Amino acid sequence: MPRVSQDHLDARRRQILDGARACFARYGYEGATVRRLEEATGLSRGAIFHHFRDKESLFLALAEDDALRMADVVARQGLVQVMRDLLAAPEPDAEHPADWLGTRLEVSRRLRTDPEFRSRWAERSRQLTDATRQRLLRQRDAGNLRDDVDVDVLTSFLELVLEGLVSHLAMGLPADDLEPVLDLVEESVRRHRRTG
Amino acid sequence: MPRVSQDHLDARRRQILDGARACFARYGYEGATVRRLEEATGLSRGAIFHHFRDKESLFLALAEDDALRMADVVARQGLVQVMRDLLAAPEPDAEHPADWLGTRLEVSRRLRTDPEFRSRWAERSRQLTDATRQRLLRQRDAGNLRDDVDVDVLTSFLELVLEGLVSHLAMGLPADDLEPVLDLVEESVRRHRRTG
Repeated sequence: MPRVSQDHLDARRRQILDGARACFARYGYEGATVRRLEEATGLSRGAIFHHFRDKESLFLALAEDDALRMADVVARQGLVQVMRDLLAAPEPDAEHPADWLGTRLEVSRRLRTDPEFRSRWAERSRQLTDATRQRLLRQRDAGNLRDDVDVDVLTSFLELVLEGLVSHLAMGLPADDLEPVLDLVEESVRRHRRTG
Repeated sequence: MPRVSQDHLDARRRQILDGARACFARYGYEGATVRRLEEATGLSRGAIFHHFRDKESLFLALAEDDALRMADVVARQGLVQVMRDLLAAPEPDAEHPADWLGTRLEVSRRLRTDPEFRSRWAERSRQLTDATRQRLLRQRDAGNLRDDVDVDVLTSFLELVLEGLVSHLAMGLPADDLEPVLDLVEESVRRHRRTG
């Protein structure tokens, strides 16, 4: 395929994803109808579904985008930094950051009751889990991590706190007092200093 | 008011709450229509809304029930025990435990965008926060709690993990490996033992 064409396809895909993210954030998963997706992306349904099989695939591609972006931060700075970033500016490229996080919560019923949807979702979030686990293993090798708790337990712990933070922000609950909480979370996975 | 009448009112109120909980769990907040609430409670809309001003009030009464029941466990055994109970049997009196937790997530958009709804919700969850804080203060007095982190920070930390757990269970994600994570959470708020 000639390069210009691939560039064009990539740009079109990006245009669809950006519009769809804003649309899901604004109307929720159910409320993001095909007509609204057309309006938000500026493209016809034909063009949209040429790139993505269906609405579910579009939504999951956005979840994958999130997971990749977070995994990138995790690799360099760890999962607690992802949480600090969420706290500072939940989603830099969205107009109403918490809205997109809320849409992620709204699909919980679907995730619970639709095994195929859940497995596609899990596939995407696995990248974040893997990145977190790798980071923790490196930190352990460097002597920064506590070694009395299994790395898988520490990984699940950090992910559980992240889920709590996403839920908290999506509900619009006050978050200005959470910095010291994240300090505590970070300290809980580090090597213990000698204390009395 | 004669006693028999008050007993009758209490029983009727309980009947409505139990039916409504099952209805919200099954259909979600939006899907729990007045007709479905009538079917689930076995009562007419007149009877239901004689006891509760509107659907929102009914939903918030259920959230308050949860908060009171959890606050009771917190007072005796702490918030980590609430999480252990959720893990063991997310909601003993519901047919599909995670469904009710999911309905709590589904209102996140409403919580975020409707200040009155959020403030009525916050009023109810404050009881759980207060119970947690009181329990932690007693534990600190008894010398069981770490004293290098503010009690408010420890309270927020435990509540954030609880939010994560609710979200995790509501999404139907695997939870059989979370017991050691809760051990870590519990240990993180306790007085540090001397370690190397």
